[in-house]
Amino acid sequence: MVNERLDKLREKMEELGIDLYYFNTTDYHMSEYVPEYFKTIRYFSGFSGSLATLLVGKEEAVIFVDGRYHLQAERECEPNGIKVVKLGTEGALEPVDYIKEYYPHKLLGIDGKRTSVSFAKKLLKEKIRISDNDIYSDIIEDRAPLKDGEIFELEEKYTGLSRKQKLDMMYYCLSDKVHVLSNLESIAYLLNLRGSDITYTPVFMAYMVIMDKDTYLFCDIKRFSAELLDELYADGVIIRPYDSYYSFLKDIKGRKILLDEEKINYTTYTSLAFNRIMNMRSIVEDMKAIKNPIEQENMKLAHIYDGVAILRFYMWLDGIDKRTINEYDAAKMISKFRLDYKAFDLSFNPIVAYNENAAQMHYSATEDNAKQLDNKGILLMDTGGQYYEGTTDITRTISLGEVDPEIRRWFTIVLKSMFNLSEAVFLKGVASNQIDILARKDIWKQGVNYRCGTGHGVGQTLAVHERIPNIRFSNNPEGTENVELKPGMITSDEPGVYFDNLFGIRCENMLLCKTMYENEYGEFLGFEHLTMVPFDLDLIDKKYLDEDTVNAINRYHETVYLTLLPYLNEEEAQYLRKKTMPL
Amino acid sequence: MVNERLDKLREKMEELGIDLYYFNTTDYHMSEYVPEYFKTIRYFSGFSGSLATLLVGKEEAVIFVDGRYHLQAERECEPNGIKVVKLGTEGALEPVDYIKEYYPHKLLGIDGKRTSVSFAKKLLKEKIRISDNDIYSDIIEDRAPLKDGEIFELEEKYTGLSRKQKLDMMYYCLSDKVHVLSNLESIAYLLNLRGSDITYTPVFMAYMVIMDKDTYLFCDIKRFSAELLDELYADGVIIRPYDSYYSFLKDIKGRKILLDEEKINYTTYTSLAFNRIMNMRSIVEDMKAIKNPIEQENMKLAHIYDGVAILRFYMWLDGIDKRTINEYDAAKMISKFRLDYKAFDLSFNPIVAYNENAAQMHYSATEDNAKQLDNKGILLMDTGGQYYEGTTDITRTISLGEVDPEIRRWFTIVLKSMFNLSEAVFLKGVASNQIDILARKDIWKQGVNYRCGTGHGVGQTLAVHERIPNIRFSNNPEGTENVELKPGMITSDEPGVYFDNLFGIRCENMLLCKTMYENEYGEFLGFEHLTMVPFDLDLIDKKYLDEDTVNAINRYHETVYLTLLPYLNEEEAQYLRKKTMPL
Repeated sequence: MVNERLDKLREKMEELGIDLYYFNTTDYHMSEYVPEYFKTIRYFSGFSGSLATLLVGKEEAVIFVDGRYHLQAERECEPNGIKVVKLGTEGALEPVDYIKEYYPHKLLGIDGKRTSVSFAKKLLKEKIRISDNDIYSDIIEDRAPLKDGEIFELEEKYTGLSRKQKLDMMYYCLSDKVHVLSNLESIAYLLNLRGSDITYTPVFMAYMVIMDKDTYLFCDIKRFSAELLDELYADGVIIRPYDSYYSFLKDIKGRKILLDEEKINYTTYTSLAFNRIMNMRSIVEDMKAIKNPIEQENMKLAHIYDGVAILRFYMWLDGIDKRTINEYDAAKMISKFRLDYKAFDLSFNPIVAYNENAAQMHYSATEDNAKQLDNKGILLMDTGGQYYEGTTDITRTISLGEVDPEIRRWFTIVLKSMFNLSEAVFLKGVASNQIDILARKDIWKQGVNYRCGTGHGVGQTLAVHERIPNIRFSNNPEGTENVELKPGMITSDEPGVYFDNLFGIRCENMLLCKTMYENEYGEFLGFEHLTMVPFDLDLIDKKYLDEDTVNAINRYHETVYLTLLPYLNEEEAQYLRKKTMPL
Repeated sequence: MVNERLDKLREKMEELGIDLYYFNTTDYHMSEYVPEYFKTIRYFSGFSGSLATLLVGKEEAVIFVDGRYHLQAERECEPNGIKVVKLGTEGALEPVDYIKEYYPHKLLGIDGKRTSVSFAKKLLKEKIRISDNDIYSDIIEDRAPLKDGEIFELEEKYTGLSRKQKLDMMYYCLSDKVHVLSNLESIAYLLNLRGSDITYTPVFMAYMVIMDKDTYLFCDIKRFSAELLDELYADGVIIRPYDSYYSFLKDIKGRKILLDEEKINYTTYTSLAFNRIMNMRSIVEDMKAIKNPIEQENMKLAHIYDGVAILRFYMWLDGIDKRTINEYDAAKMISKFRLDYKAFDLSFNPIVAYNENAAQMHYSATEDNAKQLDNKGILLMDTGGQYYEGTTDITRTISLGEVDPEIRRWFTIVLKSMFNLSEAVFLKGVASNQIDILARKDIWKQGVNYRCGTGHGVGQTLAVHERIPNIRFSNNPEGTENVELKPGMITSDEPGVYFDNLFGIRCENMLLCKTMYENEYGEFLGFEHLTMVPFDLDLIDKKYLDEDTVNAINRYHETVYLTLLPYLNEEEAQYLRKKTMPL
């Protein structure tokens, strides 16, 4: 079946003189998670993972996947005669290098609407000739339609700022410049609107152009209620059809245009050919990274709701024989406790991994392959919910019974590492890649590292991953790792250890950055814990802790107890008291 | 007298149509410390400090000084009718802003040989018209001549690499590019030569051009012995008169020229007008920052010699009534113990500060103003020596008798902070501004900060301050703070606290960066202590230390004892044993 599809594609390529065609896994908005509509690599190769590049030539088709997908791509693609390039292994070429090596001077077809400006520029810099042409959409049969469900308003009691206030701030910052925006989270944030086009992230497909104190929203009008349309109109938002975006852009000439070449597609860029493009991160990303006081209060509430749900899951789990469930069942129950209480959705696909499965950082149990639990060992649960008040993301690693002392030692080191960061105090001016070492230093001292960042930003009833703040130790001047930490920012704090085929441990709290004190030396910042869920006391081996950390854990548990108490019944309160006893 | 001098200068300015003349405190090589010859600001204003800017207009003369020189400039310059701008105070304009404000469209005279390219470019960017003209040298009477003492060779047993090897590396890196170099330390390093033109830094005045596998050294030939000249000739070093440098440059055309605009003067830049200039930090700076194994062994030896000298000073101080000496006497004695043993010079002007004087970070006692000591309180000593084996820099804060418990608390926090950094283990790839927080975090937790970097590089029998590595928490992408730490680099580790009018505490060791272990996670780096001098056990209050730090201090003291032992007599050994008892 895949081969027939590829044959049709090759006919089109032949027709248009295209030697090689390029597919990726993003959408028109450079989204991380995409609607079904954009799963074109699956259609043309059989690969069902979330990240890949597919190159289709006249004689061959080649798929490029990273470490987590090496086996899956082999299984899904090789039967279709597709060559799998396992990135990260010896001699594996990156797509661009592969093109340069095997297709020199050939014409590469791309869908410019699904290719970032920066990637297209990279191709051009490597002297690869490109043709921007969507040749595949006409071929795909029975394609899932783009979603067009209703778009709803997130009330000001949640957002803290009205749409008008946010847009006025944009007009003030932009002055005579034009801002072109296609990032779905930024658009949803600016307009205080939410949708359900993408699983787990309550956004809707739209483009936006802000120009001369007018805001153009490219999104089908039938998706708004009459009342909401009136409001949008009153706030100066002009709605145009989603499909009219590119022709609108072509009428803009001689302007200074602010856009983010990492986040904007190439067709947008070429449609703006007669303007001066200024490549920079959107102001909106920085705006939404700093939560206002109302947003902060709401986020606290969302995390209290989340804490209650997880507590109820703990109680349920404590009461059963673990041998009767598997990882998938546990994940389902966590979701159920969340959705039964206050969450309107999950914020990502739950990761619930038992023992050695937790050593795979991207592990996700399915109904078929889920591992049975037992009354021993450890369970890692990385889950989150969407609330009108905010978005949560929490990881706990708990014991299900007897646990090896070496695992308790490692749990204690990871927990201490999490607190090393959360309890830090630092002068304003410090960037996120300068505090990363606090969460790593004790793990590094053991000669071990976790191969991912320490923390990421989180949206307010938006994407669970935002790139400000971005706590990691890389030093890329183009990246967001060296953006200054500011009061109001929210970050995850999630050190871990992952030992292949043995076990994995991660502890993750969400932290709110805030001013601790101001004096002659300047403004000192620190963090407040948002997550309100106890750590497993049975996994802590006190002999690996210093006094400061013991105090910090005790203070945290006391806060969790006092904060959740008003939301609990008698039995739950007693259970929580036990779970938060001082060390 | 100053006024007569300024009158003569103004006559010259009138003659040449110059409205305003600019003086700074550097030399032709952008050096931090300069020979007497370049103390022109003192000649034209009376100011004797080490850093200032002087602007001379037709009607006024204005001197710009930073915080440490506010009072001194008032005292020395105001009697001469010179206006003092106290930088850092409310409303004080920086020199460039002052020129823009009060001398718009006027012609500014500069000595281009004493102005960095980057500063000249800044003036031009601000649309300030400049005239590169040394109008003052003819006016200065009885000027101290430039030094022209003998230049000597630092043997390969100290440098680890021959001159030929170093130059061959340069030829290899440069290929067809030309490197113009005027930094005195880089030139001395590359040629394995040393001089005595500048106090405390064993360098000599010279320029260098490396081009087409030839090395041109602009330095007077009479300063070399016949034997050394033969050697230099054999290694392909072509010696030209110091004064012929600029005319040599003017003959270079159509080449790619590597130079560091921060470190090269503007006249050099304009002399190379018909070439393509590539502004970058000199490769030599990165080369010399990584000490080779022979250099490392020599540095260790230099620090052992230094440790013996300081130990002898401690013993001497222990034996006297402190009331009989002042800070200046103590500094003299430290220097004496160094120079009597193995040092051939000091590496900087000793800082010896008693009690509240230590709160001034740049305090330096003179014979006249030195404070008398007493048998109580604390003494901060930041001193260093020049050895053929290397350069040292060490700070110890010691008690002279009874000490307030609050001071012992702060000493313990500072000491712990020093060890927090020295005992760190981190993955290769981490930059120096990412480990800074380790030395600051405990001090920040107290709501206090030290307003300076945590560590600086050090030269090998060269300048005591090198800018790689540069441990601070600033985030300037142009700076050296985010240069990756590498095995073989040497840094100081010198956290402190400075409480105005109360006391100051600093602990400083030199550390050698080295590989700790390599495994599946990568290469882990850490530090080895070079400094071999005990910390004052009487100042440590163990209740503020965690177990890890207690162990680190004990390990360090044990190493100091075992390392110095072979160099000590019976009495000294017993004294050291007492000073290095485990906590």
